[in-house]
Amino acid sequence: MLSELVKKELKRIVGDSNAAFAREDLLCYSYDATNTLYLPEAVVFVESAEEVSLILKMANSEGFPVVPRGAGSGFSGGSLPVEGGVVISTERMKGIIEIDTENLTAVVEPGVVLWEFQQEVERKGLFYPPDPSSMRFSTLGGNIAECAGGPRAIKYGVTRDYVLGLEVVLPTGEIINTGVRTAKGVVGYDITRLMVGSEGTLGIVTKATLRLLPLPEAVKTLLVVFPDLKDAAIAVSEIIKAKVIPSTLELIDGVSLRCVEEYARVGLPEAEAVLLIEVDGSRDGVEKDAAAVERICMETGASYAKSATGKDEVKDLWKARRAISASLFRVKPNKINEDVVVPRASIPELISGIREIAARFNLTIACFGHAGDGNIHVNVMYDKKNHYEAKAAEDAVADVFRLTIGLKGTISGEHGVGVSKAKYLSMELKPEAIEAMKRIKAAFDPNGILNPGKIFPKKAAEEGAYMVGPEAAGQPAVTG
Amino acid sequence: MLSELVKKELKRIVGDSNAAFAREDLLCYSYDATNTLYLPEAVVFVESAEEVSLILKMANSEGFPVVPRGAGSGFSGGSLPVEGGVVISTERMKGIIEIDTENLTAVVEPGVVLWEFQQEVERKGLFYPPDPSSMRFSTLGGNIAECAGGPRAIKYGVTRDYVLGLEVVLPTGEIINTGVRTAKGVVGYDITRLMVGSEGTLGIVTKATLRLLPLPEAVKTLLVVFPDLKDAAIAVSEIIKAKVIPSTLELIDGVSLRCVEEYARVGLPEAEAVLLIEVDGSRDGVEKDAAAVERICMETGASYAKSATGKDEVKDLWKARRAISASLFRVKPNKINEDVVVPRASIPELISGIREIAARFNLTIACFGHAGDGNIHVNVMYDKKNHYEAKAAEDAVADVFRLTIGLKGTISGEHGVGVSKAKYLSMELKPEAIEAMKRIKAAFDPNGILNPGKIFPKKAAEEGAYMVGPEAAGQPAVTG
Repeated sequence: MLSELVKKELKRIVGDSNAAFAREDLLCYSYDATNTLYLPEAVVFVESAEEVSLILKMANSEGFPVVPRGAGSGFSGGSLPVEGGVVISTERMKGIIEIDTENLTAVVEPGVVLWEFQQEVERKGLFYPPDPSSMRFSTLGGNIAECAGGPRAIKYGVTRDYVLGLEVVLPTGEIINTGVRTAKGVVGYDITRLMVGSEGTLGIVTKATLRLLPLPEAVKTLLVVFPDLKDAAIAVSEIIKAKVIPSTLELIDGVSLRCVEEYARVGLPEAEAVLLIEVDGSRDGVEKDAAAVERICMETGASYAKSATGKDEVKDLWKARRAISASLFRVKPNKINEDVVVPRASIPELISGIREIAARFNLTIACFGHAGDGNIHVNVMYDKKNHYEAKAAEDAVADVFRLTIGLKGTISGEHGVGVSKAKYLSMELKPEAIEAMKRIKAAFDPNGILNPGKIFPKKAAEEGAYMVGPEAAGQPAVTG
Repeated sequence: MLSELVKKELKRIVGDSNAAFAREDLLCYSYDATNTLYLPEAVVFVESAEEVSLILKMANSEGFPVVPRGAGSGFSGGSLPVEGGVVISTERMKGIIEIDTENLTAVVEPGVVLWEFQQEVERKGLFYPPDPSSMRFSTLGGNIAECAGGPRAIKYGVTRDYVLGLEVVLPTGEIINTGVRTAKGVVGYDITRLMVGSEGTLGIVTKATLRLLPLPEAVKTLLVVFPDLKDAAIAVSEIIKAKVIPSTLELIDGVSLRCVEEYARVGLPEAEAVLLIEVDGSRDGVEKDAAAVERICMETGASYAKSATGKDEVKDLWKARRAISASLFRVKPNKINEDVVVPRASIPELISGIREIAARFNLTIACFGHAGDGNIHVNVMYDKKNHYEAKAAEDAVADVFRLTIGLKGTISGEHGVGVSKAKYLSMELKPEAIEAMKRIKAAFDPNGILNPGKIFPKKAAEEGAYMVGPEAAGQPAVTG
């Protein structure tokens, strides 16, 4: 429990109007997209690195947890105050400090909404590629903490590839600058990339220097329909093998298609799978690439391919794509949304394996996502009031993870570990690797005050709970 | 001094023929491109992560330094055994384990020579962009340890951007796997990128998974001649402002031009500056980009531009470019070779500033390098037998660093800190940032056995030795 003295000091640091302690205010900062709820004891709205520093120093001396929060749109619980304490919201730090059109860089505060930043950048003929589905509301600070990806990662990479430098407050309160304003820079250890994707457990970002690109001259959007899901998966691999790198290569399976069409009504076809593909670049290059993609898809079993004509049609298609996650609740009231990645040539195997798991557990599993980079969102649908189904869903997820690891993949491409995947960490990482990460955490946060309860399983006993490899194959999943 | 028991154990671990203790053998592993010499007490040629692990564990229990070494081509002393001990050479680990043309990845051992890897990759129609001038002899392990760059970084980034995952032996002997085989992956902290550029102080890489690209369809090479160096620097900035991103954009100043032409005789023009520019991509795109580049250069004061015709001419130009560093010894017998980076729009200011410094110290300073990404190799030429000139050279370098930091740049783009830049570290990094890095080092290497004496200044007193900012401007340099 926060003492009255701590509360008073918080108000002194951020100003009375920037600190909230009432239950109704706290409720608004108690959840994220995982739909679980943990009430903090205070929420403060910071406006500078200095304020963050003072709060973190006090957290160390007084012993309370601090949890940084952007828009709270994360899928793994990264911003949940699972041990209570103080939520630091960066939503008032929304300054776009600089967009440098000569050096193709920008300096931003963490509370800037991704969409607003992208609009601003594109008005200047520049381009900031990361595009998670939450792009209209998620913040740059949250994107950095979770290393947000999105459809365009296949060609342009993820948030990590666009962060040049940071101003970050360490858990012990020191304000440091990391990285550079240039593409190259090798002075000292790469704390910039260590911070990216560290899920708010190693520091709180208060400023970021981002890399921009010139906006591509042309973009072309294709919708390709497949009677068979597996053929769509094979087409993904064939496109890359032909050395065409689309800017997005999204797969949507039949379940997802039907749900989202009912929900968004944009005229998506009734099919077992579609690929939503964009190519970008020079005007000539785009036409050539689009033609190649269409040819490959038709040769791999597509029933038809059409280019989206006009801005509205493209907008509708992407609106539908981004609405899939929400629309799936039409199938069942609850879902476990995972974001496994496999080397893209293994997508057909992943898809077959998931179908087999769905059949074995008698569950609906909707698959969609960034097939081009091997990152599939696997949505296991269930009703949590049905105890057996809930247990089956959890066991199915563990099997999906085993399948993924067996295909040399990773259990999270962009959502992070947070709370929801912590117990599966040892499926992917050897104990020595987890130990090395814990050493970094302890070196930066000796008192464990920053975003506790994330990434690492709480009890050592849980770490060995999941077995991967031949000895585990075919056995029922053990859930911790 | 290594005990006889340690020597015996080293031989047992790697085999008699893979351990050397004789002075004549040790001499071959005592230097790098900095031309300084530190004799190790043993050199061992490892062939597996397990061997490395056993040696590191013994180093901790017996207390001797271990220094990893690739080809020894580094410019900052990263592979020098400055405190003696055991050099671990990875030169026998030269396996290209896999080139996966479907997933565009490769798995390699650290001793593979970059050039040999690139040839192998290109034979399969794929592309591994990092291209330091040492590419014909430097190893992938060394490239990873130093985060090697090169001319193509302007468009394609540096080594960091192509390392997906590592097998790495931690200083305490644990063998861990980091990262993934896919573009996305956010499970746990990014130890992969922490290792890249850590100059062999945090672990020894024994295997790497690298990202490949499709080989561009076409490349076009232009040589553009400028009567005035400053105009060439302005042209660099104008090209990027026009949103053309060449695959290389190299600047060579008059001093460098004259030296390398005498040395390599490839018919380079007599001029105050040339830009060596390559554009790549689709056949149409390349022609369009080359025309745009040529137009911009001519408008910015170029006297003429020509495209290289035929493979031999292109090869000659690049041979000359890569020979500059060695050819400069025609001016003076010694040089300090730095690789500062500034935001590219500030290159004209950097160049003017360096000219002013050269004039003030009465020194020849040759500038060439990767102007496109703001990374200029500044070569301060001197004769070390002339004590006054040697001191002037050192002071001039400190002034170049101050100028660079003032322009929001970094003192090293690709060479690293190692031994040669350690005393300048505090010019760029605040004490709190250096402290955070030292905490990481201590967390990974509690006994300080792995590559000691690198990156961090030895004595705390040295850290404050260099002042940057207004209070230092114009004052004579203080050298530690």
